[in-house]
Amino acid sequence: MDLHDTIVKQAETAKSASRRLAVLPSPIKNKALEAMACALEDGAALILEANAADLEAARAKKIKKSFLDRLMLDEGRIHSMAEGLRQTAALPDPVGEGEWETVRPNGIEIRRVKVPIGVIGIVYEARPNVTADAAALCMKSGNAVLLRGGSEALRSNRVISSLLAKAAYDAGIPEGALQFIDSDDREAVGEMMKLKGLLDVIIPRGGAGLIQRIVRESQVPVIETGAGICHTYVDEGADLDMAVRIAVNAKTSRPSVCNAMETLLVHEKEAKEFLPKVAAELRERKVELRGCERTRGVLSDIEAATEDDWSTEYDDLILSIRVVRDMDEAIEHINRYNTGHSETIVTRDIQRAHRFQREVDAAAVYVNASTRFTDGFEFGFGAEIGISTQKLHARGPMGLNELTSTKYLIYGEGQVR
Amino acid sequence: MDLHDTIVKQAETAKSASRRLAVLPSPIKNKALEAMACALEDGAALILEANAADLEAARAKKIKKSFLDRLMLDEGRIHSMAEGLRQTAALPDPVGEGEWETVRPNGIEIRRVKVPIGVIGIVYEARPNVTADAAALCMKSGNAVLLRGGSEALRSNRVISSLLAKAAYDAGIPEGALQFIDSDDREAVGEMMKLKGLLDVIIPRGGAGLIQRIVRESQVPVIETGAGICHTYVDEGADLDMAVRIAVNAKTSRPSVCNAMETLLVHEKEAKEFLPKVAAELRERKVELRGCERTRGVLSDIEAATEDDWSTEYDDLILSIRVVRDMDEAIEHINRYNTGHSETIVTRDIQRAHRFQREVDAAAVYVNASTRFTDGFEFGFGAEIGISTQKLHARGPMGLNELTSTKYLIYGEGQVR
Repeated sequence: MDLHDTIVKQAETAKSASRRLAVLPSPIKNKALEAMACALEDGAALILEANAADLEAARAKKIKKSFLDRLMLDEGRIHSMAEGLRQTAALPDPVGEGEWETVRPNGIEIRRVKVPIGVIGIVYEARPNVTADAAALCMKSGNAVLLRGGSEALRSNRVISSLLAKAAYDAGIPEGALQFIDSDDREAVGEMMKLKGLLDVIIPRGGAGLIQRIVRESQVPVIETGAGICHTYVDEGADLDMAVRIAVNAKTSRPSVCNAMETLLVHEKEAKEFLPKVAAELRERKVELRGCERTRGVLSDIEAATEDDWSTEYDDLILSIRVVRDMDEAIEHINRYNTGHSETIVTRDIQRAHRFQREVDAAAVYVNASTRFTDGFEFGFGAEIGISTQKLHARGPMGLNELTSTKYLIYGEGQVR
Repeated sequence: MDLHDTIVKQAETAKSASRRLAVLPSPIKNKALEAMACALEDGAALILEANAADLEAARAKKIKKSFLDRLMLDEGRIHSMAEGLRQTAALPDPVGEGEWETVRPNGIEIRRVKVPIGVIGIVYEARPNVTADAAALCMKSGNAVLLRGGSEALRSNRVISSLLAKAAYDAGIPEGALQFIDSDDREAVGEMMKLKGLLDVIIPRGGAGLIQRIVRESQVPVIETGAGICHTYVDEGADLDMAVRIAVNAKTSRPSVCNAMETLLVHEKEAKEFLPKVAAELRERKVELRGCERTRGVLSDIEAATEDDWSTEYDDLILSIRVVRDMDEAIEHINRYNTGHSETIVTRDIQRAHRFQREVDAAAVYVNASTRFTDGFEFGFGAEIGISTQKLHARGPMGLNELTSTKYLIYGEGQVR
């Protein structure tokens, strides 16, 4: 079979499995997740062997170090994947949960309940742990899943997914509910995007290039995730020590992730005192600073920020800084350049805090806290499939609830219209 | 300016207006809706004049009668549009409504509240009343809107939308929040589908061809609406009089709408008694019947249903009938041929009722009531922008709530991660 036929066949099997998976009781799903966790632990040697081969091939291609680090597995990381499966098993099952109900004047009773979405396609880069995480969330929420990981992790993903699928099936999950697209052909993603009617949604996880390609070309609905140009705005009268702490944390605690700060906005009245303070701390952590003209009036030795800087997600130890006249200018800047992810204001003024939260257009708008908290675990969801930066279906961190749709159940006694 | 530039410019203005509209207090939005209602009534003569010109042009093109009926306006219909605006004003404003909140162990407080989606594109056919209905729902939910109606209604829509936009602006709605795409060029829809980053969603209303074109080609997220291949399943032991009443209502009370029944499934044990009963009632209402082989064993004079019949939305006085061995076969038939809209079972058996609701995959699954109730007004939403047949974002009738997104608001006291 060629790639197209293979993938269509996989999706058809997944769709058929999804019907049975959707009505599977929680205890069976939970037992399956536990069995999947054990399967990873028992199969650790096999996984590590495959991973070593992936790593060797990647090294031969002179792929950069941070990439190799994400690709690499060891006993500890396999254990973490297994723990993730067990933690997901322990979360409440959203399926069947009532959202709303009413009795209409004609006597019909209407309830809206959560149901699985159906078949979910997950497209991700060469991070083998995503295979287990995504499988866990999809099984728990009653969704069949087609997994398509980055080609550099093909051998690792093949072993992990087949261990998971076998354990799931043996524990009562319908055959075909958890499938891996075993191809390093880039066109596999192209084929997935055409599976309208079989796939209910594609969730891409990874770099902006991958995500934008899928958003542009997919006929299957997409949930856009992950791009984060996040801002910290230091308001007039803010607690400057707090502002330094938040800015340094937002920039440096993990610069490669989407909830890290990329641009710092500072009220003009605070610039002279605040900028040298924050610059000292940031430089100590090797952050390269780029600034607008007024910033450079205070920090004379930094490079000029260009228009490009305001719209770049560095994902690195680089920060662009702009001095603004007032909060209007800060909000305007944010709404123009942000990606709708996370923004924060450091302020003592309650009215400006509220206005900032109301007028800034983003999934998560903070007052006096670091943007780094935008995360399914930090929000208490217990798990995360990604962070939606779009407004439809889900916005912000997506956990099990966001992997559900709804259904109206109506009872009557013969009513007609 | 060419079409492309004009539409991009309109969308940019709408996006900028949407920021201000999103934070407008309810009383201003409600006063604007009232003013818009008055503007339609005061401008009735202008609207009727434009509508007469549209009708004349359509008649010259020998367009069919049902189409002309939908295009036609009179004093009564203008009054209904105005009433719709007033009713929307009276509905609760969803914007700002809290959905969920928590305090995390580190002390940050997280709330999720409803916010407008942003800018909504509505693409519809030659029904001028949709111009007013869609404008009302979008303004009330704080969304800017780009309206694109069928070209045969261009003159009517031009007058209606300009009356509405002027009244809205005079009442405090930001300029550009309500815009009409004044072009009969088919490519206008093509241009809208490219407005990623400016339009947040396109909601197509109309025929399957229009909707499928947009789903296939749009780079802007789409909410699929309207296709309805709805089934009625008459279970073993059902109250056959109730079954006749429900089937006749579902098929004949308004055959052209999406929640009307297209296929009747009958348990083999009831076929002999039920089919002649229901056929007599349906024939009296001029319904053409087509049946499977076993149906024709009872109703010998009807045409054979082909494979095509099971997957056709007739929107007309035609019904396909199939006798099934058991409920398994009924559910399998439905899940294979339905469009995820509305399905009903007529039964006395509580277990089978529950199983039907659990296993049938559709937005609305009924027990002992007509599928015709799937409707925003019948569900008590007070209004409806369409009926979603997809699983993401919204499923089933969409009212004001479904025109919102969410935002996380987080308060801290300097927390970092």
